[in-house]
Amino acid sequence: MRNQNNPSSRIHAEGLDRADPLARYRAQFELPSDNIYLNGHSLGPLPKASLARLTDVAAREWARDLTASWNTAGWSALPKRLGDKIAPIIGAPAGSVVVSDGVVTNLFKAVAAALALRPERRVIVMEGSNFPTDNYVVQGLTAWLGHGHTIRFVESDGLLAAIDPQVAATVLTHVHYKTSAILDMAAITARAHHVGALAVWDLSHSIGAVPVDVGTAKADFAVGCTYKYLNGGPGSPAFIYVAPTHQAAAHQPITGWWAHKAPFAFDRDYAPAEGTSKMLTGSQPILSMAAIEPGLDMVANILPENLHRKCGTLGETFLAALDPVLDGFGLAVASPRDPAKRGGHVALDHAEGARIVWALAARGVMADFRAPTTMRFGFSPLFLRHVDAWDAAAALIEVLKTRAWDRPEFALSATVT
Amino acid sequence: MRNQNNPSSRIHAEGLDRADPLARYRAQFELPSDNIYLNGHSLGPLPKASLARLTDVAAREWARDLTASWNTAGWSALPKRLGDKIAPIIGAPAGSVVVSDGVVTNLFKAVAAALALRPERRVIVMEGSNFPTDNYVVQGLTAWLGHGHTIRFVESDGLLAAIDPQVAATVLTHVHYKTSAILDMAAITARAHHVGALAVWDLSHSIGAVPVDVGTAKADFAVGCTYKYLNGGPGSPAFIYVAPTHQAAAHQPITGWWAHKAPFAFDRDYAPAEGTSKMLTGSQPILSMAAIEPGLDMVANILPENLHRKCGTLGETFLAALDPVLDGFGLAVASPRDPAKRGGHVALDHAEGARIVWALAARGVMADFRAPTTMRFGFSPLFLRHVDAWDAAAALIEVLKTRAWDRPEFALSATVT
Repeated sequence: MRNQNNPSSRIHAEGLDRADPLARYRAQFELPSDNIYLNGHSLGPLPKASLARLTDVAAREWARDLTASWNTAGWSALPKRLGDKIAPIIGAPAGSVVVSDGVVTNLFKAVAAALALRPERRVIVMEGSNFPTDNYVVQGLTAWLGHGHTIRFVESDGLLAAIDPQVAATVLTHVHYKTSAILDMAAITARAHHVGALAVWDLSHSIGAVPVDVGTAKADFAVGCTYKYLNGGPGSPAFIYVAPTHQAAAHQPITGWWAHKAPFAFDRDYAPAEGTSKMLTGSQPILSMAAIEPGLDMVANILPENLHRKCGTLGETFLAALDPVLDGFGLAVASPRDPAKRGGHVALDHAEGARIVWALAARGVMADFRAPTTMRFGFSPLFLRHVDAWDAAAALIEVLKTRAWDRPEFALSATVT
Repeated sequence: MRNQNNPSSRIHAEGLDRADPLARYRAQFELPSDNIYLNGHSLGPLPKASLARLTDVAAREWARDLTASWNTAGWSALPKRLGDKIAPIIGAPAGSVVVSDGVVTNLFKAVAAALALRPERRVIVMEGSNFPTDNYVVQGLTAWLGHGHTIRFVESDGLLAAIDPQVAATVLTHVHYKTSAILDMAAITARAHHVGALAVWDLSHSIGAVPVDVGTAKADFAVGCTYKYLNGGPGSPAFIYVAPTHQAAAHQPITGWWAHKAPFAFDRDYAPAEGTSKMLTGSQPILSMAAIEPGLDMVANILPENLHRKCGTLGETFLAALDPVLDGFGLAVASPRDPAKRGGHVALDHAEGARIVWALAARGVMADFRAPTTMRFGFSPLFLRHVDAWDAAAALIEVLKTRAWDRPEFALSATVT
């Protein structure tokens, strides 16, 4: 496969673009005219339809119809409607997913529910190198609970062995935020179930880039973000999945009125809603919720395998162009070389990674950096061309050849995931 | 005061409008042309500047500048920047308020933090008739904690007596969602402190309508909503206040990376941020966050006493017009008659309240209904005129005189707070 896609020139990349069945989606985004945007793994670009949708929500639904829009414009139904569009993308049945709150809050709810379903167990298995917010959530939750839970931090090669009968739950991210390596959800979940544990999955770097099948894998809970490969807008609300087998017994603690079985009865006392609705909290930020839908609709109409295939050919185009120079410039590929085992982005390590990312930005190639040495190049499948991947690699080679990064103005600076 | 403002005719209301120092703000809103909107206590209307702001956030900050906007457009700073604008409105010092998540999640965090500061105590005092989501949150939190907490439900006249040394915290809403009655924050908080308890306040129906001074009252925690009298947009994120005395010791359990002392160090383990930042969770919905600011800026420039005074004169205009017919039509005023003791809305009870609200809507007067018998008429001070209050009362009288509500199509239907 590497040979087949190995571009000997930019012309080869142009050929891949001409044959690309997803090429037509690029025109559906507002893209910056002056750069190649390889940060879609952090914040997806604006779908043109989202700007129109947002204007309509503000100028018509909010301004003109006001409170009536909770019903007439379907605001009240958004958590479920968006959830039902996400469900088939991750292999979940209708009604098992809702969109609400952020990834952090949803992970808190999912892990809280999982631990309550395994009250006799005190160990949680996590990948220590995971995006740390997931660690922080579980650390905060368990410290506050005060039941003596401990987190067993292991890396991917030790995961299966670490899942023993002490384990209440595994809490793992399907695609690694740094390396882009894909964990084997089915095998890990099966191992968890074999010892009586539950499996909670963070799909933030998966949905819209990598096939996911929580149903076949029998995942117990899952959460994920909508602003990366779903292009839902900055900080857009997150989703949460509860396996049908747990929907009756699972409970989360943030029980606002949207999690009540009859919110408009205004009963004094809490009674849980049916199914995944009990994972809701209160009113959701409608402007940000509504802006999710156009990007989600695009992804929902494409087979996840086709999205992942294009992530792969974009990444291969990039890596094939770099291959001849990797060693000479002190670059190391931190992601799996097999595109089938890699998510949407490609990670490269370099001792001067931070400054290289800034030098690339000065040349119109937008990537990001994760300390201490990792550069991430996001190959979002809907709006990028293979020539973009080729041009980005050429710019990187140029930066390395000319040591363009070696300037005081390219100092380390923070960027957001 | 009642006599002075008692309009004997619509002309008197017009005179109040001519003398209204807040009259100029009406032009800053997009208002429906065909009705009188008295649901600002539920969802404030669209500030014209918010539509422009929203378009700019989407078309420039998101579409053009993308991830750079977390820094260059100040997205990362929004929770604190909005919080610092809210702080003086509620009598809080700079740095003690952040905007993040929803009221439900923020109340969960505040109550969790308060209970953890009083680990030996097991009683929480709440008003049973409060908007039930607050009850649900505390019920869900305490049930799931499993430490044997109980909620002592009392009504306003029994609150002070119910606060005894068993009490860990009072969790009360400053302005009642149904009756609009204002609780005495200073007296209740003082009583709580006298017995060693903490006071958590929900300011959802207060901010932008009623003066609040959490500093003078020595409130321990407060939360509140931005989509009512702040006009921040449907479901816009909420605020949370932590008294400076608690900022070191207080901890909440939903500890995402925005609550970490160094989020971009990507340390494996959680370490709390300083001050109120530890009340944050993860990335916030930026479109909904940004839309809060124009409405907030308007309120921030007006003395809360002036906002409350106008709520009062609007409500008095409405009630004075209704006074002669109240008894004859079976209407009862469910709110305090003294405008100094009333929030932004006026509640009327009627056995056919649900159908009356629908009949009013058919006549272009938008109010809402809370089961079993309460109609709420919101007198938002920034965009309503005294003639609107007078005209709304006239429409209500007409509906009652003609029994226009007595039609099958005006059946009970749910509306959102």
